[in-house]
Amino acid sequence: MNSKTKITPSNKKVDSSGNIFSFSNSLITNYKSVRNFSKKLSAPLQTEDFVIQSMPDVSPTKWHLAHTTWFFETFILEKFIKNYKPFNHHFKYLFNSYYMLVGERFPRPQRGLLSRPTIKEVFEYRNFVDEKMLELLETGDDEILIEIKKVLEIGINHEQQHQELIVTDIKNVFSLNPLRIKYSDGENVIPKSIPELKWISFDEGIKEIGFNGDEFSFDNESPRHRVFLESFEIANRLMTNSEYLEFIHNGGYNKPELWLSEGWYTKERENWKAPLYWENHKGDWKNFTLNGFKEVNPAEPICHLSYYEADAFARWYGAKLATEAEWETASETVNIKGNFVESGNFHPVPIQEENNENQLLQMFGDVWEWTSSPYVEYPGFKTLEGALGEYNGKFMSNQMVLRGGSCATSLWHIRKTYRNFFPPHSRWQFSGLRLAKIKS
Amino acid sequence: MNSKTKITPSNKKVDSSGNIFSFSNSLITNYKSVRNFSKKLSAPLQTEDFVIQSMPDVSPTKWHLAHTTWFFETFILEKFIKNYKPFNHHFKYLFNSYYMLVGERFPRPQRGLLSRPTIKEVFEYRNFVDEKMLELLETGDDEILIEIKKVLEIGINHEQQHQELIVTDIKNVFSLNPLRIKYSDGENVIPKSIPELKWISFDEGIKEIGFNGDEFSFDNESPRHRVFLESFEIANRLMTNSEYLEFIHNGGYNKPELWLSEGWYTKERENWKAPLYWENHKGDWKNFTLNGFKEVNPAEPICHLSYYEADAFARWYGAKLATEAEWETASETVNIKGNFVESGNFHPVPIQEENNENQLLQMFGDVWEWTSSPYVEYPGFKTLEGALGEYNGKFMSNQMVLRGGSCATSLWHIRKTYRNFFPPHSRWQFSGLRLAKIKS
Amino acid sequence: MNSKTKITPSNKKVDSSGNIFSFSNSLITNYKSVRNFSKKLSAPLQTEDFVIQSMPDVSPTKWHLAHTTWFFETFILEKFIKNYKPFNHHFKYLFNSYYMLVGERFPRPQRGLLSRPTIKEVFEYRNFVDEKMLELLETGDDEILIEIKKVLEIGINHEQQHQELIVTDIKNVFSLNPLRIKYSDGENVIPKSIPELKWISFDEGIKEIGFNGDEFSFDNESPRHRVFLESFEIANRLMTNSEYLEFIHNGGYNKPELWLSEGWYTKERENWKAPLYWENHKGDWKNFTLNGFKEVNPAEPICHLSYYEADAFARWYGAKLATEAEWETASETVNIKGNFVESGNFHPVPIQEENNENQLLQMFGDVWEWTSSPYVEYPGFKTLEGALGEYNGKFMSNQMVLRGGSCATSLWHIRKTYRNFFPPHSRWQFSGLRLAKIKS
Amino acid sequence: MNSKTKITPSNKKVDSSGNIFSFSNSLITNYKSVRNFSKKLSAPLQTEDFVIQSMPDVSPTKWHLAHTTWFFETFILEKFIKNYKPFNHHFKYLFNSYYMLVGERFPRPQRGLLSRPTIKEVFEYRNFVDEKMLELLETGDDEILIEIKKVLEIGINHEQQHQELIVTDIKNVFSLNPLRIKYSDGENVIPKSIPELKWISFDEGIKEIGFNGDEFSFDNESPRHRVFLESFEIANRLMTNSEYLEFIHNGGYNKPELWLSEGWYTKERENWKAPLYWENHKGDWKNFTLNGFKEVNPAEPICHLSYYEADAFARWYGAKLATEAEWETASETVNIKGNFVESGNFHPVPIQEENNENQLLQMFGDVWEWTSSPYVEYPGFKTLEGALGEYNGKFMSNQMVLRGGSCATSLWHIRKTYRNFFPPHSRWQFSGLRLAKIKS
Repeated sequence: MNSKTKITPSNKKVDSSGNIFSFSNSLITNYKSVRNFSKKLSAPLQTEDFVIQSMPDVSPTKWHLAHTTWFFETFILEKFIKNYKPFNHHFKYLFNSYYMLVGERFPRPQRGLLSRPTIKEVFEYRNFVDEKMLELLETGDDEILIEIKKVLEIGINHEQQHQELIVTDIKNVFSLNPLRIKYSDGENVIPKSIPELKWISFDEGIKEIGFNGDEFSFDNESPRHRVFLESFEIANRLMTNSEYLEFIHNGGYNKPELWLSEGWYTKERENWKAPLYWENHKGDWKNFTLNGFKEVNPAEPICHLSYYEADAFARWYGAKLATEAEWETASETVNIKGNFVESGNFHPVPIQEENNENQLLQMFGDVWEWTSSPYVEYPGFKTLEGALGEYNGKFMSNQMVLRGGSCATSLWHIRKTYRNFFPPHSRWQFSGLRLAKIKS
Repeated sequence: MNSKTKITPSNKKVDSSGNIFSFSNSLITNYKSVRNFSKKLSAPLQTEDFVIQSMPDVSPTKWHLAHTTWFFETFILEKFIKNYKPFNHHFKYLFNSYYMLVGERFPRPQRGLLSRPTIKEVFEYRNFVDEKMLELLETGDDEILIEIKKVLEIGINHEQQHQELIVTDIKNVFSLNPLRIKYSDGENVIPKSIPELKWISFDEGIKEIGFNGDEFSFDNESPRHRVFLESFEIANRLMTNSEYLEFIHNGGYNKPELWLSEGWYTKERENWKAPLYWENHKGDWKNFTLNGFKEVNPAEPICHLSYYEADAFARWYGAKLATEAEWETASETVNIKGNFVESGNFHPVPIQEENNENQLLQMFGDVWEWTSSPYVEYPGFKTLEGALGEYNGKFMSNQMVLRGGSCATSLWHIRKTYRNFFPPHSRWQFSGLRLAKIKS
Repeated sequence: MNSKTKITPSNKKVDSSGNIFSFSNSLITNYKSVRNFSKKLSAPLQTEDFVIQSMPDVSPTKWHLAHTTWFFETFILEKFIKNYKPFNHHFKYLFNSYYMLVGERFPRPQRGLLSRPTIKEVFEYRNFVDEKMLELLETGDDEILIEIKKVLEIGINHEQQHQELIVTDIKNVFSLNPLRIKYSDGENVIPKSIPELKWISFDEGIKEIGFNGDEFSFDNESPRHRVFLESFEIANRLMTNSEYLEFIHNGGYNKPELWLSEGWYTKERENWKAPLYWENHKGDWKNFTLNGFKEVNPAEPICHLSYYEADAFARWYGAKLATEAEWETASETVNIKGNFVESGNFHPVPIQEENNENQLLQMFGDVWEWTSSPYVEYPGFKTLEGALGEYNGKFMSNQMVLRGGSCATSLWHIRKTYRNFFPPHSRWQFSGLRLAKIKS
Repeated sequence: MNSKTKITPSNKKVDSSGNIFSFSNSLITNYKSVRNFSKKLSAPLQTEDFVIQSMPDVSPTKWHLAHTTWFFETFILEKFIKNYKPFNHHFKYLFNSYYMLVGERFPRPQRGLLSRPTIKEVFEYRNFVDEKMLELLETGDDEILIEIKKVLEIGINHEQQHQELIVTDIKNVFSLNPLRIKYSDGENVIPKSIPELKWISFDEGIKEIGFNGDEFSFDNESPRHRVFLESFEIANRLMTNSEYLEFIHNGGYNKPELWLSEGWYTKERENWKAPLYWENHKGDWKNFTLNGFKEVNPAEPICHLSYYEADAFARWYGAKLATEAEWETASETVNIKGNFVESGNFHPVPIQEENNENQLLQMFGDVWEWTSSPYVEYPGFKTLEGALGEYNGKFMSNQMVLRGGSCATSLWHIRKTYRNFFPPHSRWQFSGLRLAKIKS
């Protein structure tokens, strides 16, 4: 545990924005912090808000709060407490997400059909499990705690992932409501000035990517391994709404030559004409944000794009998306800092940093950056034993890797080697794009 | 009871079971009663329960409470109060059900995606409209009140219809939840003894059916008109679970010769093997009721059948369902009494009456009785003017008529001429069956 | 014509248009005639045309030719020839349409996925069965022939029904092909002049409808029975394209108050803006016919309407569709004559008759007339025994009755009591409309 | 053109099996050969067979024959012949597959709804275009011929790809027909003996993959570029039916831990229990082949697997699928030979070669080998100009690469660098698997 203080230089995190909670070298403290943060994110919601599932990808907030609790109960309390009596034996079925080896699961698309347990009961469930967890962590002997630690770290990181989903899912839920509900009261952030797009160069050669350290990481980030990269250039910053509007005005959505075939048919079927949450009001583009329904801010990073749109934009621009190896290699030159969930913006913001020559900006936070890399295993990849082996590996088909975290991600959660993944048509995450080029 | 002025003899209502509220000859009293009864039906629910839409046919309780209020606001307050300022201008869109002439409507299958307005706000909306309504009713001059009365009676009956839906819809919502929620604490009612099935005969001839009187009725019950009926016989009572179990055990669900073609394919596609809400536990049939999950009571009227199942059962039995004209003709011989929503059973009950020779039993309440009559207009039918003309007439295709009311219907709402209608595959209403025969 | 013995007066058929084959009092002659006529209808087709199923309602011509043969093989040869060896034992499965009591059936929506048997083999199958049939009919003893006759008449009428489907189905197949294939070379028929719409009156009273005679009829036409009708008026002729164009120009497709609710949603989902097979070319309406792609002829009866459209038109006009009892009662005043399949038009034609005062015109042929009557059983209806009981009765839900036959029906097939039925959304039959009114 | 003789050693093709046609250094000869071979493949078909589309992925044979002709007409005749008059101006629309820059296309899923043009007319179309093509090739001046050659080679290879589809598509069409049609009369090939599975090792290092030569190749095979590979082992031969049966018997289809999540849900939804075309008859596995319905031959390479099944099998075996870079690197050690379409087997056959120590067997022909590589662009990839740029690049999402060709591929078509690609759920191609391992 004390290894937590030993953050590797390349993963150094700078919290410039008054972070809401801080991670200590104590797992107990971290456990409490993360559990509290879920409650904090739920605070703006009315009871009714906790229940809604706006589409199959989305889960009700109530479900996230219960499922993350189920995770600790199933993988720690049931394993390490003798004769553990669960809070409610129905919850094993109701709040299992996709762990087939644990047993049957309530059908995902029907999560929004459950009025019970009530949100009050879910918080009682959380308290019940928290008490048991803390008792276990405070009284367990060292040998057991070493075992628990492995799973506990997963559980903490797991809850952080669901915290991100709480934010993105409630945004989706609110977006469907004509009453234009606000989750938060953030204001549009005014940029100092948007720096010119510059290309940062990297030489060809064998690079190493993937995780190799003592701290926590997910199995899909390992093993660290060698790849050969051609010389490439990567943009110094994210693409902005302003630049994306040019793409739209230039007919980007109507030019088949810019699009992947599946992207084109998805766009046609879904009638996409702009990013998710954008609406055209008499020629002006507005967008629904967690801070309200607002004019599109041209200086903000473009957001809520599918991979197909990011890819079409890149082609239109005469560039490409970075591979995840290119992105990770480039990320070695900067520290982890940015606009994360702790900032309380709940939306990407225009560049606030000074524009240093040849410096990569916005590599972390704001928006997840679509890479051109399908999500596949690293050479020598091994899943965890048992049901936890289902965590990441089984999703390695028809998904693309995203990197860098977003305004809904926790600063304490992200890593340079972190691999997020979504199907190419997904748009409800805070997903944007950075350009790259093979040097010729 | 005697307070209900000018009840035509044939419509006489006998409330044997301690009715919860009583209808006076004062519209104001009736308005208040009905509005209160909606609140009463909502009392057992948790906040989360109000939000769920378990299938497209079902609406969230919250929606029913708001829509019935919208009805008074739209068709009375907006018409009769000068410069009326609506409670919330979004509600016109959100809570319009199907009145196209009123304007656009929020899509029906998405009613369960709205967390806001909260249930608290919906009750504020109800209070707001109630205050305005009572002010209008108490201060309006006679001429206007005559105009208002026509719509008010529709509005009151409309809310009663939605009260029935509140009951059937919340049953559907709860039925999907593995936690087996109870709405009420009713006990199985023990029958004295189930009387033998007897056939009551009616002679051939020209009969009159349809409404003709001074009290309120829906447009689809008019005009009263002549029909020619062959001699027929009708069963003295409803079919019971016990008799339906025989049909099941006899392979009724596997004999194509008993089924309408669409019924067979519906059954196959939906994998029906018993009425809705029945589950087989190791050979025993249990059913989900609003009073909990219970053994199927053999003496109760069979319930939650589709038309297809009722029709197949009748064919298996060697009989048929009555036409609506036969049913209405037969109903002239008895008074309106039975197990209605006011009894608080929220479920059909076994026959409690003494079995008089040649007396029709259970004609009202308990379960809606599927007739073999498609829902079509009576000769000379005229819809109401304007948007209210959309109330009934436009649904006259692919639906079957049901008669007699159910345990979720208000005693004050039903009439002998009352025509309920649902598509033949619908099962979530309290719908059962009575047999008939053409006399040969 | 006079060769058709014992025609009841009310069913008298006048073939003014040079009939292609004639019915004798010999069943053998009739069998041969009908079997030959199927071949005649197939003559204009290329081998490839026989194979296509353009939508689930449509069957490939090849299938019709084989299925009608299967009918004789299954219900006659297999029953009446000892140790009958079928032509191909796979055909029992492949060419059973919907007779569950006969056994499993090849899935209907996949009929167009079968390249084999080839059309050549299907004609061999037809010849094989015809030989056996004729042998049986010529050598069978009287007792057996009486038994056979009952089924043979059904089989002959059954093949006539499929001949109508051959025509309507190949029209649907050809309509999807940009090559604008012609089935026939008919020319637009020029009307003498379209007579003014007049209302023919009928008095109220008890009427008798349904079949009662010695000739063949389907089970669903019986028993003949009494109905009470209010006084009504019925239009002297069919509605024309010209009149329907007024409905279109008057915004008929955009006025929800004219439409049944299901009709409206069907229209919206299917994007109907005119009858089936109509296309708007720069403001001019053209339509695809079996005689080619042509300007809409204003004088022709309107055709290829769904019930929903016919019903909306009637409401727009301030009238209604006749019930089937009204239609049948009115039909007693005229003889059966008109534009049937034997005329070789394969399309409705403008009125050719002299316009006698108070004479019903176009009651038979041209287009099936949607009635406002759902297809239900007559009081005392009995299906045939065994699998043939599945012929008509099991379709008595969610269908509407049509009367009078069309330009694709055989003159020898239609009767005044004949009840055709289709779901209200169906448009690929030659279906049009005649108006009626309740007299007030 | 004369470059064709200069086959690079690594691509050397050995046609041991009496090849049906041979490629010369003359493009004219090759054009004729390929065009003839399409006719040859069509020879066993009846007219009706040419018309059927058994699922959206499948096209009617008629369509393949016309579309390949359209390709030459559109990209050569229309470009290089002044005032070229097309055979039929509808064909531009009817037979365009997916080239959006060429114009609108007839909807793919409806290709089986077209009876016309007839197959006779399609062959006339082919003759018409062939005549024009040969005239152009024989009379064109050198400058133009150089331009034409680029497209002609694509067109020839394009037709070879569609020849493979003719085989796989007609197999799918025939498989649905209960009549068990045979396309060919091949017999099961008896293996000498199936050699033991051996692992061939390759060292880690920078490897080059991708095409770099003078002969024809597709754009997606370029540019040749460097990749870093860990040490790996690859199996000396394909997996057999016998080994796959072990997987089935061991419950492979019921163990979620073996499957990708999407694979599992696909399997459940489609109810897969074995490879495509396998049927269990009382415990014995039979499979539908182009040579008839037969017992599964244990010695044959397993075939008609989805990627999901291949991947699950590999995980069950404790191995993995090779990446495409590993596969291509390994392929450098052997010559191109094997069981291709020219052999006339139309089915994979057991190993016929002598089992040399450390020799890779069956690398080409028999079955396409699923790799673990998603289909993405090589670094520096450039699509062709214009509509032909749509040939390959736009499909680079949600597809996996397959290598090595199959028994339906032409020997003259395959290359070591050749990249085939299909979605992971596809099974109707001849697709099987070879195992690999990362060396530890």
